[in-house]
Amino acid sequence: MSKVHNFSAGPAILPQEVIDNCAKALLNFEGTNLSLIEVSHRGKEFVAVMEQARSLVKKIMNLDDAYEIIYLQGGASSQFLMVAMNLLEVKAAYTNTGTWSTKAIKEATSLGNVEVLGSSESKNFNFIPKDYSISSDYDYFHCTSNNTIFGTQMQSFPSSDVPVVCDMSSDIFSRELDFTKFDLIYAGAQKNMGPAGTTLVVIKKSLLGKVTRKIPTMLDYTTHISKDSMFNTPSVFAVYGCYETLKWIDKQGLAEIEQKNTAKADLLYGEIDSNEMFEGTAAKEDRSKMNATFILKDESRNDDFLRACNDANINGIKGHRSVGGFRASMYNALEIDSVQVLVDVMRNFK
Amino acid sequence: MSKVHNFSAGPAILPQEVIDNCAKALLNFEGTNLSLIEVSHRGKEFVAVMEQARSLVKKIMNLDDAYEIIYLQGGASSQFLMVAMNLLEVKAAYTNTGTWSTKAIKEATSLGNVEVLGSSESKNFNFIPKDYSISSDYDYFHCTSNNTIFGTQMQSFPSSDVPVVCDMSSDIFSRELDFTKFDLIYAGAQKNMGPAGTTLVVIKKSLLGKVTRKIPTMLDYTTHISKDSMFNTPSVFAVYGCYETLKWIDKQGLAEIEQKNTAKADLLYGEIDSNEMFEGTAAKEDRSKMNATFILKDESRNDDFLRACNDANINGIKGHRSVGGFRASMYNALEIDSVQVLVDVMRNFK
Repeated sequence: MSKVHNFSAGPAILPQEVIDNCAKALLNFEGTNLSLIEVSHRGKEFVAVMEQARSLVKKIMNLDDAYEIIYLQGGASSQFLMVAMNLLEVKAAYTNTGTWSTKAIKEATSLGNVEVLGSSESKNFNFIPKDYSISSDYDYFHCTSNNTIFGTQMQSFPSSDVPVVCDMSSDIFSRELDFTKFDLIYAGAQKNMGPAGTTLVVIKKSLLGKVTRKIPTMLDYTTHISKDSMFNTPSVFAVYGCYETLKWIDKQGLAEIEQKNTAKADLLYGEIDSNEMFEGTAAKEDRSKMNATFILKDESRNDDFLRACNDANINGIKGHRSVGGFRASMYNALEIDSVQVLVDVMRNFK
Repeated sequence: MSKVHNFSAGPAILPQEVIDNCAKALLNFEGTNLSLIEVSHRGKEFVAVMEQARSLVKKIMNLDDAYEIIYLQGGASSQFLMVAMNLLEVKAAYTNTGTWSTKAIKEATSLGNVEVLGSSESKNFNFIPKDYSISSDYDYFHCTSNNTIFGTQMQSFPSSDVPVVCDMSSDIFSRELDFTKFDLIYAGAQKNMGPAGTTLVVIKKSLLGKVTRKIPTMLDYTTHISKDSMFNTPSVFAVYGCYETLKWIDKQGLAEIEQKNTAKADLLYGEIDSNEMFEGTAAKEDRSKMNATFILKDESRNDDFLRACNDANINGIKGHRSVGGFRASMYNALEIDSVQVLVDVMRNFK
């Protein structure tokens, strides 16, 4: 098999050892002679997987017992609702940095007062707004750390007296951060964390129990916290895939992972900036290390470039329809060799 | 490897060819040289899987285009809420036949008026209530077709002028039914349908759009119908597992599957009734073909019996704590040979 260079935006490339271990567990899970997907989630083997998938997150993020780790279903899209349902009493502050922020704002608005403190919508979300301050009378402040579609990423986070809620779906575990600065972090698994089908929520326990509305059982974080993410049958395979990916992340540590991601981003953005045929679409200071968005100055050559990428076994490089052009997603598991192949194609194209 | 006889209540036994095909797709999905879990869900390969997973349900259930098929996340537990959210305007009728019905009633009650027409709660849910009629002024009638924990199953469904909603999580695709008699069917996948992590909803389109409440985006069936279950990233692996299982079901047809399930149930219940050491816990006429619940008359021998089962490589036979004793779950993929092994252990135990 010739190697495919997988720049897909998500579901996205995962480490080969994770995929191999998932396939092994499918055929014989922990020596049970049964498949991972046909054993009880309450059996000791899977309970151990869930426990480790939870404790590895705490370890990698360096969080103490003030935080709870839960695995839910429904994607980040369901968190847009659950965050507001569990935390929004009087008013909340949001920044709008793209498609996902917009959807998060829409869901929260249906439940209460939402103020948008900063938005880059008028410039097709090509930068991260920074000229705002967060007053202390909000229930929480919500931001999206990385914008898959528009190729921007928050390089720093605003200081705030109110709880900080962050959608980290597309750059979780890609860099070192002081995670104690956040009160609630959520992420659909299908970028850096594992297979699609589960959503990680990291939450400071002290945040909960403050709203007066009646929260439906499945939308209440306390339901899932009190049952260690086993209130009902979890998304077994997806949680197992996260467990395997978290072990891979933990072996390296976030410092090393960040270093590799920086090297990959430097290589690609270096080419985008020096190659006169191409142009980046995001503001330089806000460029994402996960998703590099760029265009051909001569758009009539788009199909030629896609064909050249295809010939080099490069997958998933076509840009999202909201931005056009191209997008190279460089999640943790992508090797720099693949970025070099793309850069070579760009050079040859010139 | 010695064969394990898997009587687990769910997640449960799946056909070996389904497991093998899932493992193959993990290593190389549809010749892409990429894993099923690292390709875009919007790529043509996975879009085709989703389309077939939807159309196979229609084919097997013999439904026309009045029905929509969607794959959601969050388990049947989330459907307890979504059903009421989308359909309950004035009042709804429910039967209470066990743990899951009770939870469904609880969620619906938080949104509107619910009347429980029949309940077997006073007898620890050991039968299916039948002495009720459904007046025409309900928004819908809700029932649970099979009760995993208590080992009862509806052998027929009441006639009704109002839409019929059925939780078929634990006996879907186990028998021939006139599925056009139902207006909404939902099922967590992890018994007869596939791996945990996705939930099937079959819904008559004409049912929707009749409530006045504002429904949050992710809880609105129309959101998912309008995007062919791709409003957000679906639970890719679980949907693929369903697709493989549905192909296996379709090859045999529900008539043949029902025949096999009846033979397995007859074999086991025959032994329960003729072996003086054992006793079934459910009313005979309401016995489930999926989950047979039984006890040892001399409970002091429970551990001995579990040990004998264990020695025979029988897995998942311990009863749910709500009932005690034993439970043999005999989903579609369980072969009659495995039931024979259990029956032999019961005979030898005498």
